[in-house]
Amino acid sequence: MNLIIIHPDEIRNNMVELTGRRGDHVRKVIRPAEGDSLRIGILDGPRGLARVVRAKTEVTLEIVRLEAEEPGPEVVLVAALPRPIMLRRVLAQAAAFGVSELHLINAARVEKSFFSSSLVSREKWEEFLLQGLEQGGRTRLPQVRLHRRFRPFAEDILPGLAAACVTRLIAHPQERPKCPADMTAPVIAAVGPEGGWNEFELDRFAAAGFSPFSMGATIMRVDWAVPAILAFIESSLG
Amino acid sequence: MNLIIIHPDEIRNNMVELTGRRGDHVRKVIRPAEGDSLRIGILDGPRGLARVVRAKTEVTLEIVRLEAEEPGPEVVLVAALPRPIMLRRVLAQAAAFGVSELHLINAARVEKSFFSSSLVSREKWEEFLLQGLEQGGRTRLPQVRLHRRFRPFAEDILPGLAAACVTRLIAHPQERPKCPADMTAPVIAAVGPEGGWNEFELDRFAAAGFSPFSMGATIMRVDWAVPAILAFIESSLG
Repeated sequence: MNLIIIHPDEIRNNMVELTGRRGDHVRKVIRPAEGDSLRIGILDGPRGLARVVRAKTEVTLEIVRLEAEEPGPEVVLVAALPRPIMLRRVLAQAAAFGVSELHLINAARVEKSFFSSSLVSREKWEEFLLQGLEQGGRTRLPQVRLHRRFRPFAEDILPGLAAACVTRLIAHPQERPKCPADMTAPVIAAVGPEGGWNEFELDRFAAAGFSPFSMGATIMRVDWAVPAILAFIESSLG
Repeated sequence: MNLIIIHPDEIRNNMVELTGRRGDHVRKVIRPAEGDSLRIGILDGPRGLARVVRAKTEVTLEIVRLEAEEPGPEVVLVAALPRPIMLRRVLAQAAAFGVSELHLINAARVEKSFFSSSLVSREKWEEFLLQGLEQGGRTRLPQVRLHRRFRPFAEDILPGLAAACVTRLIAHPQERPKCPADMTAPVIAAVGPEGGWNEFELDRFAAAGFSPFSMGATIMRVDWAVPAILAFIESSLG
């Protein structure tokens, strides 16, 4: 937990009571003394410092300073819906890297059962998105949208997303060009299912102006590919 | 499982019986018909194709073709020993990306308890290394070495490792230069503990000719940083 995320509704006269997971983490892992400073972030708001007022059985913080976060470059991620255990990680990764929009889409090689997982619900997502913000030290929740059918997404949604971006990339692990070392924001990147995109899907992305790229011969799991690609984009924009 | 890894000792007259996890995977996930071809790899040897002789209650394959794997570029990974759940993933990632040597080292911010984990044993490592080979489609097991003390590693081992490599990089998530977009093999890369390297450690790596780099502002978990860096290296060498 590199940043303690606080919901605006939790603040009363600059004071915050931390309960549950965050409170336990502060008491058991960080174990601060009274008066210590901790890094905090207001959900979808500024980051800053809080002073520890109490951290014994309950944790009380007083917010002492807030600074607006410099908005990072706009990055939109399109990912074929992965299996539930991977989805948790991809949600956290997208939030940690400051992705503004995450579009989870269907594709021919996405198993139908993934869409009926109990994890495919907005309420469940937030837990993993928050873990990602805590890890990455960010405060902005990505907008997450689920698209249950590929063709309506490709025909009605994708062109608009693509038109709003300058760099448009689709990962496809074969003999493709390398990921460009210099990119211009906003960036939209698409990551396929295990087994890859099929030709129809690649054609639809190509029609929307996406360039295929490969990071090499290694066949990555989606929870390896997503941080690799997002780190690559961050590094290429930096 | 993108490649079925077979130990040379398992082959009798070109035939292999798959039991346990691999057999279950073939029967329940791949579900081939008799006569189908499957991609196989001989541990520390060539890759090739096998014909499915039986795949009902037991799985029998006949090896029909083997081709020596083109040796990938030499990449050595030095990682501060992570917590056990992360270590499993880092072992798999190192194997998947074809790392030749993985040096797990101590550092000031490595928790001492990590060294007494039941996972810190050569026999336990192999399971996760094999999973990585299956994922990455490779056959060569990385050499894994554990170094319980930083200073003897830095003084006695690191200079030799560094001298054998052309590109020497140490990840450190701050205001550092970007990872170079073009590298020359062999490459050695060092990844720190959660909380980062301390100044003494950075100095020792600098003395051995390592250049610090950052992939961006996002604070990554080690199991995100390792595939990001290894994919970056693979892409930069390609």
